[in-house]
Amino acid sequence: MAGAKSFVEVPAGSHFPIQNLPFGVIRRSGSPQAPPRPAVAIGDFALDLSAFADAGLFDGPVLSGSPCFHQETLNMFLGMGRPAWKEARATLQKILSADEPVLRDNEALRKKCLVPMSDIEMVLPITVGGYTDFFCSVHHARNCGFIFRGPQTPVNPNWFHLPIGYNGRASSVVVSGTDVIRPRGQGHPTGNSAPYFGPSQKLDFELEMAAIVGPGNELGKPININDAEEHIFGLALMNDWSGTTISPWIVTLDALKPFTCEAPKQEPEPLPYLAEKNHINYDIPLEVWIKPKDQSDASIVTKTNFKHLYWTVTQQLAHHTINGCNMRPGDIFATGTLSGPEPDSLGCLLELTWNGQKEIPVGNSTRKFLQDGDEVILTGCCKGEGYNIGFGTCTGKVLPALP
Amino acid sequence: MAGAKSFVEVPAGSHFPIQNLPFGVIRRSGSPQAPPRPAVAIGDFALDLSAFADAGLFDGPVLSGSPCFHQETLNMFLGMGRPAWKEARATLQKILSADEPVLRDNEALRKKCLVPMSDIEMVLPITVGGYTDFFCSVHHARNCGFIFRGPQTPVNPNWFHLPIGYNGRASSVVVSGTDVIRPRGQGHPTGNSAPYFGPSQKLDFELEMAAIVGPGNELGKPININDAEEHIFGLALMNDWSGTTISPWIVTLDALKPFTCEAPKQEPEPLPYLAEKNHINYDIPLEVWIKPKDQSDASIVTKTNFKHLYWTVTQQLAHHTINGCNMRPGDIFATGTLSGPEPDSLGCLLELTWNGQKEIPVGNSTRKFLQDGDEVILTGCCKGEGYNIGFGTCTGKVLPALP
Repeated sequence: MAGAKSFVEVPAGSHFPIQNLPFGVIRRSGSPQAPPRPAVAIGDFALDLSAFADAGLFDGPVLSGSPCFHQETLNMFLGMGRPAWKEARATLQKILSADEPVLRDNEALRKKCLVPMSDIEMVLPITVGGYTDFFCSVHHARNCGFIFRGPQTPVNPNWFHLPIGYNGRASSVVVSGTDVIRPRGQGHPTGNSAPYFGPSQKLDFELEMAAIVGPGNELGKPININDAEEHIFGLALMNDWSGTTISPWIVTLDALKPFTCEAPKQEPEPLPYLAEKNHINYDIPLEVWIKPKDQSDASIVTKTNFKHLYWTVTQQLAHHTINGCNMRPGDIFATGTLSGPEPDSLGCLLELTWNGQKEIPVGNSTRKFLQDGDEVILTGCCKGEGYNIGFGTCTGKVLPALP
Repeated sequence: MAGAKSFVEVPAGSHFPIQNLPFGVIRRSGSPQAPPRPAVAIGDFALDLSAFADAGLFDGPVLSGSPCFHQETLNMFLGMGRPAWKEARATLQKILSADEPVLRDNEALRKKCLVPMSDIEMVLPITVGGYTDFFCSVHHARNCGFIFRGPQTPVNPNWFHLPIGYNGRASSVVVSGTDVIRPRGQGHPTGNSAPYFGPSQKLDFELEMAAIVGPGNELGKPININDAEEHIFGLALMNDWSGTTISPWIVTLDALKPFTCEAPKQEPEPLPYLAEKNHINYDIPLEVWIKPKDQSDASIVTKTNFKHLYWTVTQQLAHHTINGCNMRPGDIFATGTLSGPEPDSLGCLLELTWNGQKEIPVGNSTRKFLQDGDEVILTGCCKGEGYNIGFGTCTGKVLPALP
C-alpha cells in the first residue's frame, strides 16, 4: 500500500492520500437543505459516501445495501465494527486507485461523489453519547503535580497502577472551527475573602487525542484488554478547553498501523486486567500553533508526539469498562494533555509557562495564557515513506466572555 | 384541583391520582413489536398518550397534530417547554375528570388508551444525553467530611459558595427494576502493598432525586437563575449506585406546586448569579427500604425529606450553565445524597453505619453495606389534603460480581 496512488490528485505533503482515507461528515455548502452525510477525505476532496453507496460501489457482503452511509453521523457505521470498516477501506482504496476506471472514467459519477473541500462544511462526525477524559501522559502528570503540589511526590504512586479518567461533558464537544466563548465562573478567594465572579483568567488549550468507540459493550460486561482494539474505530485531534473541540476527520487505526511503535515500559507491572499482549502506541508527531488576532501568521508553541503516552488507548478502554460501565458507538475517550519529555514538547500553556511564571513567545508577542481573539491550531501528521497519514487541523478561536 | 376526581378508579393511598399525572414511557407486555410510547399514570392504569393523541383528544394549539407522543422517549415533549406541558396537563385533567364523558363513556377508546399497570413494562423514559450529580445536602456533606477528613472542617468553606457537581456517566442510567451487578475494580493498597483487584466491598445505595431538563440552552449562553424553573420538567427518584437507577414516572413541577416550601436560608449569601427571587424547595417525604433475598419483607432503613436540600434545583441549573455549558432536553442533574439532620434520616449506608463502624438492623439481619441479593427500594410521596402526589418506587437488586 505504501506506493499506492489514486486518480484523484493528491498534492505533495497532503494529509489525506489514498493510504489514509479518514472518515468525517460533510454538508455541501451550496445546498443548505441537503442533510449531512458521511465522507472520506482524499487530497483536497471529500468523497461523499452516500453518493458512492447509491452508485452501488459498496458491493461487499457487509456494506451492500446497508443504510449506514445515509445517516447524519458515523454512529451506525461505527457500531458495525471492524468487518464493516475493513470492507469500506478495501473498497474505497480499490475504487480510488489510479488504475481502476469505474469512478475515474465516469465524469457524472465523479461529480456526484467527489466534492472539493472548498465546497463543504465539516460537521461533528458523531453523536457523542459519552466523553471521558483520561490523564495518561506521565510528563503532564509530573509537571502538574510539581506545579500544584510541589516537588516531593509530583506523581501520586497510584497513578502508575491505573489510567485515571474523569467523565467529561458530552454536550459541549464541538467540531473544529467552532468559536469558543471565554467561560465565566467563581474564582479563588484569597485569605478569608469571598470568591469573585468573572471571566476565566487562565484560559488554556490542552493538546489531546480522542479515541472514537466502535461497537460498545453491555452494562456489567467489561471489554477484555486484548479485545479492546476491536472496539476502537480511530483517533482524532482534541483540544480540551471550554467547549471540547475535535478535528473533523477521524483517522482509522487501520490507517495508523504502519506507525505503531512500542509503548513505554510500565513499572510497576499493571494488574492482569490491564496487561496487554500487544502493548503499542502510535508514532504521531503533534504540534500546537497560536495565531493572535492582530498577527497574520500562526506561531508554533509546542511540538510533541503521541508515542510518549504511558497508558495506551486499549488500557484506557479496558479500565473504563472493568467496573461494568457500558460504552456505545460514537463515545469518545481522550488521552489527557499529551506532553513530551522536553521543555518545548509540553501540551498546554500551564506547563509551557509554568502556571504563568514565565512568558512564551508567540510571533511578535508573548503569552502566559490565551487572550481573546487567539486562534489555537492543533495538527498531527505521521510521516510514511513517500506519503503522510495526517489528521488535518483542529482549530478554535477565543471569543470574549459575556458581559 | 385538590378535590378533583377521575372516572378512573384511584385506590386510596395511590401515588397517582388525577392531581399527579406523572409522565413515563410504557411498553405493552402482550405486544413485543409495539414501540414504547409516552404515558401518564392514573391510579393502577397507564394512559397511553399516543392512543390519546390519535383520538384527537389533544386539541389545544400547541399539541394538536404534534408528533411528540409518537416517540419512544419523552425528549421531544420535554424540549417543547412549559406551554406544551401546561396544555397537556390541562387537557388530561379535563378528559380524565369524573364528569367528562368523552373517554369515560367510550369503552372502545378507553380500552385503547387505559392499560392496566400489570400489562405494561416501564422503560427508561428519556434518552439521557448528560447526567450531572450534585452534592447539595449539607448534612451529607458534613457527615462525609467527618468520616473521611475528620471533625476539624467537615465541610470545606467553598461548599457554601457554590453547588458542587460532577459529570456522571449517562450511558449507565437505567430504569427502576434493572438488576445491578456488583462492580469490580482496584482496591486501596495498605502501606506499600500494590492495590488488589476484586469486587466492590462497600457497595452502597444513595438516595437522591433527579431533575429532568426540558428546553436546553445554547453552548456559551447560561440559563438565568430566575428562568431556571422554566427549563425543569420534573423530578424523579434516583439511586446513584453502580448503574444509576431512576424511577419510571417523572412528577412534574406543576404537580408538585402545592408542596413548595421555603428552602434553607443560605449563609453566606450566594453570589448574584445564584441569588433567586423564589428560593423554594419541595416538601417530599422520602424513604429507603431494603429487602434481603432470604426475607419476605422489605425493611425501612431511612426516612428523610427533599426539603432539607441546601442548594435548590434552580440554583444547581444556573450554576451548571454559568460557564456556558449547554443542557439539552432529557439531560438530568441529581441532588446528591439526600440526608436529613436526624440519625435515622441519612441517605446512604456510609452515613447510617458510619463507614461500616456499626451495623443497622434490616428485618431479622443487619447490614454494614449491601449484600448480593439485596433489593433496594426508594420511595417518595407528598401528602396533600385527601390526595397524594407520589413518585412510585425506584428499585434495583444487587447481583454478584462477575467471577
